Amino acid sequence: MNKGLLLVLSGPSGVGKGTVCSVLRKKLPELVYSVSATTRAPRQGEVNGVNYFFKSREQFEDMIARDALLEHAEYVGNYYGTPREFVERTIAEGKDIILEIEVQGALKVKEKFPEGVFIFLLPPSLDELKQRITGRGTESQDIINHRMSVAVEEMNLIQHYDYAVVNDEIDLTCKRIESIIIAEHCRKDRFLEELSHLNAATIEKA
Amino acid sequence: MNKGLLLVLSGPSGVGKGTVCSVLRKKLPELVYSVSATTRAPRQGEVNGVNYFFKSREQFEDMIARDALLEHAEYVGNYYGTPREFVERTIAEGKDIILEIEVQGALKVKEKFPEGVFIFLLPPSLDELKQRITGRGTESQDIINHRMSVAVEEMNLIQHYDYAVVNDEIDLTCKRIESIIIAEHCRKDRFLEELSHLNAATIEKA
Repeated sequence: MNKGLLLVLSGPSGVGKGTVCSVLRKKLPELVYSVSATTRAPRQGEVNGVNYFFKSREQFEDMIARDALLEHAEYVGNYYGTPREFVERTIAEGKDIILEIEVQGALKVKEKFPEGVFIFLLPPSLDELKQRITGRGTESQDIINHRMSVAVEEMNLIQHYDYAVVNDEIDLTCKRIESIIIAEHCRKDRFLEELSHLNAATIEKA
Repeated sequence: MNKGLLLVLSGPSGVGKGTVCSVLRKKLPELVYSVSATTRAPRQGEVNGVNYFFKSREQFEDMIARDALLEHAEYVGNYYGTPREFVERTIAEGKDIILEIEVQGALKVKEKFPEGVFIFLLPPSLDELKQRITGRGTESQDIINHRMSVAVEEMNLIQHYDYAVVNDEIDLTCKRIESIIIAEHCRKDRFLEELSHLNAATIEKA
């Protein structure tokens, strides 16, 4: 059986990663979504193993020590991370798994999982990104300018990714990501091992 | 404007390259098909520049001397080759062009045009390939065995290709090739130049 792919979907904040993921979820129901581990308390209705793997601080730090996370970070006093085992089990079963993550986290995942497919979501233009960043609230110009410069810095990290997908129209964006999944399954390297079996079988028959 | 892609579709003889191309022609009408040059005489109904570029032997040898062909070969006393200019003009116009060619020819194209996207069409299994090779006529077992060993040799050349597409079901095969085209347009390297313009424009505004 062919192994599945780990798809890492990232991009500057405000580019629409979450929206793309929620539409992909409907369009590609066979795609598995990576579930994060966290030390924050479950909110009403959140289910362990579905929304998050809920862990105590001690359990989480034990996972860090055992290198059981592909990446982790601390926000507002809580840990968040990507459990390696869930990803590895899914792809071993031949299923593709997608991980939505911010740009720095994606680069950490790449260190531990370079065979992943790294997709960078791009705004149609920087003006469009600026609109999305500005349009969120009533922040001061300083805050908006800061967010914008962070976004430009994040965009420069595209060089570490495999693909750049412009998020201009949601259906097109999803079609591009679906195409990347299909094309990656056709990459020659994934077939070479299978082909060697095929040839061995023929040589026996000849 | 983004440049188009040169797609090179190849694979062992008998794998169904021609059928795939004729179905792709209907499904992807915007895809341009590479037109070969030849010294053989036009057959009834063949149009110069559509079916082939018809050349005299002198003209063809002049094209070889000017390095105006991405590859060429001689069969049964006639030259056949892929004019470089038609390919380069098409991709400069931002259109994708596909070249259907046997395995050895594809490798020659790769020497002169390594930025092409090289797709290797695979039979669903070697048994299936054998059936297609055997099923063509009433050839002797020796001829069939020879063809089969050529096909296995050709299959080993897959290592020089970018993609391996199993030709198991024509609609699936075409969807895989369409996905490869869309995914290749999303490859990060094709975006890096555009991104540098984008950043420069932002820095000016800041």
